[in-house]
Amino acid sequence: MSIEDLLYKPQNSLVVQSLHSRLGAEPTNGDGFGVGWYGSTETPGVFRSAEPAWNDRNLRELAAHVASPLVFAHIRASIGSPVQQTNCHPFRHGRWLWMHNGYLDGFAALKRDLLVTVDPDLFPSIEGSTDSELFFFLALTFGLAEDPPAAVARAVGCIEETAQRHGVAFPVQMTVATTDGQTVWAFRYSSEGRSRSLFHSTDVSTLRHQYPDNPMLHGLSDDARLVVSEPLGDLRGAWREVPESTSITVRGGAEELHDFEPA
Amino acid sequence: MSIEDLLYKPQNSLVVQSLHSRLGAEPTNGDGFGVGWYGSTETPGVFRSAEPAWNDRNLRELAAHVASPLVFAHIRASIGSPVQQTNCHPFRHGRWLWMHNGYLDGFAALKRDLLVTVDPDLFPSIEGSTDSELFFFLALTFGLAEDPPAAVARAVGCIEETAQRHGVAFPVQMTVATTDGQTVWAFRYSSEGRSRSLFHSTDVSTLRHQYPDNPMLHGLSDDARLVVSEPLGDLRGAWREVPESTSITVRGGAEELHDFEPA
Amino acid sequence: MSIEDLLYKPQNSLVVQSLHSRLGAEPTNGDGFGVGWYGSTETPGVFRSAEPAWNDRNLRELAAHVASPLVFAHIRASIGSPVQQTNCHPFRHGRWLWMHNGYLDGFAALKRDLLVTVDPDLFPSIEGSTDSELFFFLALTFGLAEDPPAAVARAVGCIEETAQRHGVAFPVQMTVATTDGQTVWAFRYSSEGRSRSLFHSTDVSTLRHQYPDNPMLHGLSDDARLVVSEPLGDLRGAWREVPESTSITVRGGAEELHDFEPA
Amino acid sequence: MSIEDLLYKPQNSLVVQSLHSRLGAEPTNGDGFGVGWYGSTETPGVFRSAEPAWNDRNLRELAAHVASPLVFAHIRASIGSPVQQTNCHPFRHGRWLWMHNGYLDGFAALKRDLLVTVDPDLFPSIEGSTDSELFFFLALTFGLAEDPPAAVARAVGCIEETAQRHGVAFPVQMTVATTDGQTVWAFRYSSEGRSRSLFHSTDVSTLRHQYPDNPMLHGLSDDARLVVSEPLGDLRGAWREVPESTSITVRGGAEELHDFEPA
Repeated sequence: MSIEDLLYKPQNSLVVQSLHSRLGAEPTNGDGFGVGWYGSTETPGVFRSAEPAWNDRNLRELAAHVASPLVFAHIRASIGSPVQQTNCHPFRHGRWLWMHNGYLDGFAALKRDLLVTVDPDLFPSIEGSTDSELFFFLALTFGLAEDPPAAVARAVGCIEETAQRHGVAFPVQMTVATTDGQTVWAFRYSSEGRSRSLFHSTDVSTLRHQYPDNPMLHGLSDDARLVVSEPLGDLRGAWREVPESTSITVRGGAEELHDFEPA
Repeated sequence: MSIEDLLYKPQNSLVVQSLHSRLGAEPTNGDGFGVGWYGSTETPGVFRSAEPAWNDRNLRELAAHVASPLVFAHIRASIGSPVQQTNCHPFRHGRWLWMHNGYLDGFAALKRDLLVTVDPDLFPSIEGSTDSELFFFLALTFGLAEDPPAAVARAVGCIEETAQRHGVAFPVQMTVATTDGQTVWAFRYSSEGRSRSLFHSTDVSTLRHQYPDNPMLHGLSDDARLVVSEPLGDLRGAWREVPESTSITVRGGAEELHDFEPA
Repeated sequence: MSIEDLLYKPQNSLVVQSLHSRLGAEPTNGDGFGVGWYGSTETPGVFRSAEPAWNDRNLRELAAHVASPLVFAHIRASIGSPVQQTNCHPFRHGRWLWMHNGYLDGFAALKRDLLVTVDPDLFPSIEGSTDSELFFFLALTFGLAEDPPAAVARAVGCIEETAQRHGVAFPVQMTVATTDGQTVWAFRYSSEGRSRSLFHSTDVSTLRHQYPDNPMLHGLSDDARLVVSEPLGDLRGAWREVPESTSITVRGGAEELHDFEPA
Repeated sequence: MSIEDLLYKPQNSLVVQSLHSRLGAEPTNGDGFGVGWYGSTETPGVFRSAEPAWNDRNLRELAAHVASPLVFAHIRASIGSPVQQTNCHPFRHGRWLWMHNGYLDGFAALKRDLLVTVDPDLFPSIEGSTDSELFFFLALTFGLAEDPPAAVARAVGCIEETAQRHGVAFPVQMTVATTDGQTVWAFRYSSEGRSRSLFHSTDVSTLRHQYPDNPMLHGLSDDARLVVSEPLGDLRGAWREVPESTSITVRGGAEELHDFEPA
C-alpha cells in the first residue's frame, strides 16, 4: 500500500483533516506534519516538515513513490512549542517510532525534572523541545524496547508523580502510538479520564464485502489494520472506538485490547 | 499606530482570522501572509511569508516595532497557485501596494493573453505566478498611477473581454485594495454580482464615545479608517458593509463611495 | 543504486559541492536543490526544496529509502530569480525531466518574447519564473519528445535569434541534461564558446579493476553511467570531459557524442 | 543609522560574509542569521531565520525600515545543531541580547550537566538546542544582569570544570557579544588559547578625516563603535584586533579593554 492511499485518497484523509478536523481538539492542524515508514533499511524513514501538510509538494511526491507495510503519519496543532522540524512527529530512535496526540499540562514547570529522569545515554538524542518527544524518551528510559505497555505505564506514572509535586492536577492527555516496525501499540489515556478520540479499523474482508465499490478497501490486504484519531471515511461499521484507559496491540492482522493504567 | 494593534490585539484580529475566518470563502487562510507599510523611505516596506501568519515569530517582532500611518495586511488561502513568497500579497510597484481577495476564474486559460497585454516595460517586474499580481500589472498598464478607479475599471473590462473570448462566464471575483501611501482605494465587484464581503469602519470619535472601555479605539486617531474583509471585533455600529459594485476612496479621515463598473 | 550513494557518499559528492564547488561558476550553491527519479509510477518523482541541500534532513531520508535506475540531481546558485521551490531543478513535464546549469543572459529583456513562443497548450504548465524552466518549455514546444537533440538545437536557435533582436550578444550559457526515463541527453554549449564544465564517467568495469577498494564502484552495475558538472571523486581516468558544443546520449550502458549547434 | 547600512552597504558586509567569509572558521555561513535591535519598546526586537541571509527578502525590507542606535547581527554556520529559528542568534532574555561565534567542544556529553546548572526559574525560557543559548542562560544564572564580565567568567569557569569531569580538554571556543541596550560587552577567549578573530572600530572622526569619500563613515556619529568578527571593509587603520583572553566594553563612544579569564 502506498503512503498516498492513506494520506490523500480517503474521503476524510489525513491531509483533509489537517485543514478541517471534525473530532480533534483543534479544527486546524497546520503546524507541521510527519510520516514514518519501514522500508529496505534497518531504521525507518522519517519525513517531517514544519509547514502545513496540505501545501507540501514533496510529501505528495514521497507518498506516491514510497510503499511500506507499516506507516505512521501525524498532523500537528502546536499549543506552544515552536513550529520546527525537530518538534514534528513521529519521533524516531533506532527502529522505534513514536507519535502523540495531546499534551502534558504544566509542561514548562515539569520539564526540568523530567529531562533529568531520562537515561543519560539517551539524553543527547533528544533533538526538539516538545513534551511529546520527552515523553518518548521517558518511555525508552523505562524499557520501551523490552515491554512497551509496561514502559508507557511507567512513563505516565512518572509524569503524574512529578506533576503532583508541582501541583499540576491532570498532567497527561494522550493518545500515543509506537512501533518497532512489526507491532503497533496504541494508548488512549488521560489523567482526567477525558481522553481524545482513538479508533481502529475492523476486519477488512468483511468491509470489502459490505462496500464492494470502495476503492481504498481493495488496496488493503486482509491483514491490514488502521489506528487513527479520526475515522478516514464514512463507512459505517468500519471503525471501532478504543475505550478510555485502554491499550491496543496490533500485529499480523490481529488486535488485542487491554486496560491501561499508570504504573 | 503600531502594526501589532491591527494584527494581534483586536478580538477577531487578522491573525485570528487566518485560523478561523467567519465570513471568508475559506475558513483557514494558512497559505501565507503579507504586510505593507509606509515609513521613512520612498517606497513602502513589504514583509511577506509563505507560512501561516499565526506561526510567524518575525511578523510578531516586526508588528511590535514598526509604526506607520498606513498599513496593508493580507492573509492568503491559495486556490491553486504555489504557496511561495512571490505569490503573497500585498504586491508592490514603486510607491504602490495592491492586494486582492478573490480570484480570476479560468485563469489558466486566460493567463497568456493577459500577460501579453501588460506594458512590456512593466512585464519584467512581475515576480510571481498569481492571478492577483497579474491583475495589479494590468491596472498599472491601464494607468493606476493617474486615475485608480478608471484603471481598475479598465483592467476588469479587459479581463472580462478576454474571458468571453475563452468561454469563461464569470471571470472576476474581487475585493481589491490599492494605495499610493496617501489615499486608499478599495473595490467590491464580481462578474456574477455575488462578491466577497468588504467593510469600512465608521467615525472613530463616535465609537470611542459609545465604547469608552475598548483599548483599540484609543490607539486610533479620529482620522483613522479601516477597510477590511471581515469586521475585527463585535462593536455594533462600528462597521458598514460596502455594497456590491462599489468603490470606496479613503483619504484624510474621510471616505467616499462610488458605483463601480468595468470599462 | 540508492540516491544516497550518489548524493552523500562520494568524496566530492553533490552535497559537498553545494557547500564548496571546485569548478563551478559559484563556489556556494545554496539556493535550493532538486532530485528526480524513476520509480514504479508513470511519471518520475521529483523532490525539490529552496533551502541549501546540505541542511535538508528530508533529502537525506529520501535518499536512503529510494532506489532508482535513473536519477537526476541538481544544486542551485541563483543569479537573480527568486529562491523558491518552483524555480528548483529538475523541472518535470509528463515523463520528461530537465535541468540546466548556466543562464540566459539578458533574460529580463527576452522573457516576454520567449514566453509567447511557447505552445499555448503547454503554457499553463509553466510554474516558476526562471530562464531554465522556460528553456525547457521551448524545447518541448520544438519537439523534445520526438527528437531531443533537434528540439534543443531549435530552442537554442530561437533564443539566440530573439537575443539578437534585443541586442544581447551571448545569450546562452548552458550545460543541459534531459531524459524520458530511458535515455539521457546532455548538452554543453554557450553562445560565446566558453561553456561550463561537463563530464561523463568511463566504463565502470575498467574502473572497478583499477580501484578494487572503492566502495562506490561496487554499487554500480557495468551499465551505469554518470554525467556530471564536476567529477565526484579523484579517480584518475574515471572521468572524461565533454567537449564544447557537444551533445552526449547515454542509453543502456553506451554513450555517443555528437557535435551540437543551434538550429 | 539604519540596519541596512550595516548589513548590506559595506564592501565586506555581513551579508557578503555569509557567502564568502575571509577570516571565519567556515567559508560559508548559510545556516541562518539573526538581527536584534533596540527601538521604542521595552525589549529589543529580534528577527531570526533559518535560511541563508543572502536570500532573505524580509531581512532586506526590515533593514531598510528599521533604524536603531544599537544593532546586533549574526550569521550562522551550524556544526551539528539543527538549522531552525530557535537556534539562531542573537538570543534574547528581557532586555538582554547574546550572540556567540564558536562552540562548546564535547557539548553532547556536557549538555545534561550544564542544563541542570541553569536557574530553574530561567530554565523554561530556553527555546532551542544549541550550546550558545545554553551558554547565555548560564551567564544569566551567574548574574549577567548585575556584572556581565564576572558572570561570563563564571559561566566559562563552570563549563571548563564540567568539561574536565567529562574528559574534554578544551571545551570553550568563543567570541561572545552581549548587551542590555546601553552598553556592549564582547569577549575573546578559548580554553586552548587560539580564539576566533574579533575587531573593534577606531575613532570615527579620525577615520572620516582620513577617508573623506567613504559614505559609510558619514552615516556614523562620532560616538559610533563597531565590534565585529571580520572587518567590514578595507580601510587601513579603521580596525583594531581585540587580543586573546580580553573583554571589551563599549559605552557612549568609549571602549575599555580588560584581561579576561574564567572564574
